[in-house]
Amino acid sequence: MSEKVVKIAVDAMGGDYAPGEIVKGAIQAAREQGIEVILVGRKELIKEETSKHGAFPPISIVNANEVIREGESPVAALRLKPDASILVSTRMVKERKADAIVSMGYTGAVMVAAIEVLGKLEGIKRPSAGSILCGFASATLVFDLGPNADCKPRDLLTFAIIGSVVAQKILHINNPTVALLSNGAEEGKGNFLVKKAYQLFKESHLNFIGNVEGNDIPFGKANVIVCDGFTGNILLKFCEGLGEAIVERLRDFLDRQLPREKIEAITNDLFSLTHTAEQGGPILGVNGVVVVGHGRSKAPQVANAINIAKMAVESNLVEELKTELERELK
Amino acid sequence: MSEKVVKIAVDAMGGDYAPGEIVKGAIQAAREQGIEVILVGRKELIKEETSKHGAFPPISIVNANEVIREGESPVAALRLKPDASILVSTRMVKERKADAIVSMGYTGAVMVAAIEVLGKLEGIKRPSAGSILCGFASATLVFDLGPNADCKPRDLLTFAIIGSVVAQKILHINNPTVALLSNGAEEGKGNFLVKKAYQLFKESHLNFIGNVEGNDIPFGKANVIVCDGFTGNILLKFCEGLGEAIVERLRDFLDRQLPREKIEAITNDLFSLTHTAEQGGPILGVNGVVVVGHGRSKAPQVANAINIAKMAVESNLVEELKTELERELK
Repeated sequence: MSEKVVKIAVDAMGGDYAPGEIVKGAIQAAREQGIEVILVGRKELIKEETSKHGAFPPISIVNANEVIREGESPVAALRLKPDASILVSTRMVKERKADAIVSMGYTGAVMVAAIEVLGKLEGIKRPSAGSILCGFASATLVFDLGPNADCKPRDLLTFAIIGSVVAQKILHINNPTVALLSNGAEEGKGNFLVKKAYQLFKESHLNFIGNVEGNDIPFGKANVIVCDGFTGNILLKFCEGLGEAIVERLRDFLDRQLPREKIEAITNDLFSLTHTAEQGGPILGVNGVVVVGHGRSKAPQVANAINIAKMAVESNLVEELKTELERELK
Repeated sequence: MSEKVVKIAVDAMGGDYAPGEIVKGAIQAAREQGIEVILVGRKELIKEETSKHGAFPPISIVNANEVIREGESPVAALRLKPDASILVSTRMVKERKADAIVSMGYTGAVMVAAIEVLGKLEGIKRPSAGSILCGFASATLVFDLGPNADCKPRDLLTFAIIGSVVAQKILHINNPTVALLSNGAEEGKGNFLVKKAYQLFKESHLNFIGNVEGNDIPFGKANVIVCDGFTGNILLKFCEGLGEAIVERLRDFLDRQLPREKIEAITNDLFSLTHTAEQGGPILGVNGVVVVGHGRSKAPQVANAINIAKMAVESNLVEELKTELERELK
């Protein structure tokens, strides 16, 4: 644990509920987590929001006039808008004015800003994103969940290394088990990609336990489950969709059979268990701590993302990643 | 509709509950569906079972002494066991002694027997399997669900053609909509495979509506959703696993809050909605009607599989497939 106070740059302009909910969540995090928050965005808009929350802990504001929105080409947008909040905040990490950046903005832009400003770690082709896919298995991370749609066997190995470090540093799991997601449990099952990756995994230092299948995910059969980002993204969204369909069905069925607050409790529980990945997580493989959350995030999710960033900073996640990538990918 | 009685060869030895539940389901189907059933397997064992059901409709028995079990190499097993029930029944279709074959046996062996005995249709590299993946969307078929783990764009086109014919002939959907499963709705999203397939789909006669995402599956956004068999298999099993996790959670939550029979009703409902694909379906792309069901099938699932076979025969599914494959893949 570092003794100095962690400083986090928060992109106050990114997200569907920006800047209101972002500022609210950042203030909450600063109060509860004993960190310093720097809000980045349009100063007058941010001040209007901070003034609603009375006396507050160490929060400063850095002005940034522009915002990048979903649908813009991230590469072009970053070039045309050098004063965009996401770029200004990422630069603060580069210049060591902040230890981490947190954004609920457009993931594509956050990713490109992270790559361009901070650079990628040695051995990384494209940064990876992963998280707990399904709340039923809260000690299981799935990597990759999106950025890497087309993968080579070595990319899967990289996800496994990243996932193992995150499981240790953020979920505090000692010697996390690693598995490949496949269409059968036995060695030899899989598409070409998985079959080739299997050999690399076997030869690695990872705590590799073999293949797992789709039905193993909710039961947490491994701490790190590895797949290409295309499959991961489809699974993540299918989990959300199935959760919504089941919640609808339950509401109809339970209507007038149970008190309203009990129906709310069970349906909210199932909804959040199937929407865990929405909480966001770090972008891994860049030279700095960058946490991106869902655009729909409200204050509690913002505070949670800030907490993840804090844990990543305090546990030296990026340094540890560098070491592990170097050891495995040499 | 053909006027003659449909004759179905049923592999009485395949499945976890063979021959008891297979025979029971076959008798039920023969009674209810007005078809002729030929039970294939060890004569004395089958007779023991049929005798339990009293007077019964047109059922005959064809002896076959051997059985192929899960775990055997299908190709080797079929060579070493020429008198296996699955081979004997498939040969009956080839020799026009039966219109279709239904088996709850080892899928790999059923598939290989179908290919070797009946042959593949023109344009088919490897037969495909698909079904309703999720009971919430009962007018949506997902293809491929397993046999084709590694695909080329043209394979996805083949699945789309097959899926469209099945949607018309078995689900009675007129001009079924077809979509590609992808990691984003817009054209241009996807892995290399999906992006290339998108162009082929656009140029086809299919009623192509573009990409759908994982969360669109339970809401039936298209009648035929196409993916490679690796992704399809993982989704299918994830659907089952998530269903089981949710049912467990609900049982705990509802315990003593609702009468036991209501808890059973809602949990059974959710279980079956997330285990729809277990019902099995036709193996598509071989020159004959072959329906394979889940090994765990009991009598009602067996009767259901027989009903699918009957519909496939009566609707000339295989002839229609030949025509459509020829039209699209020329």
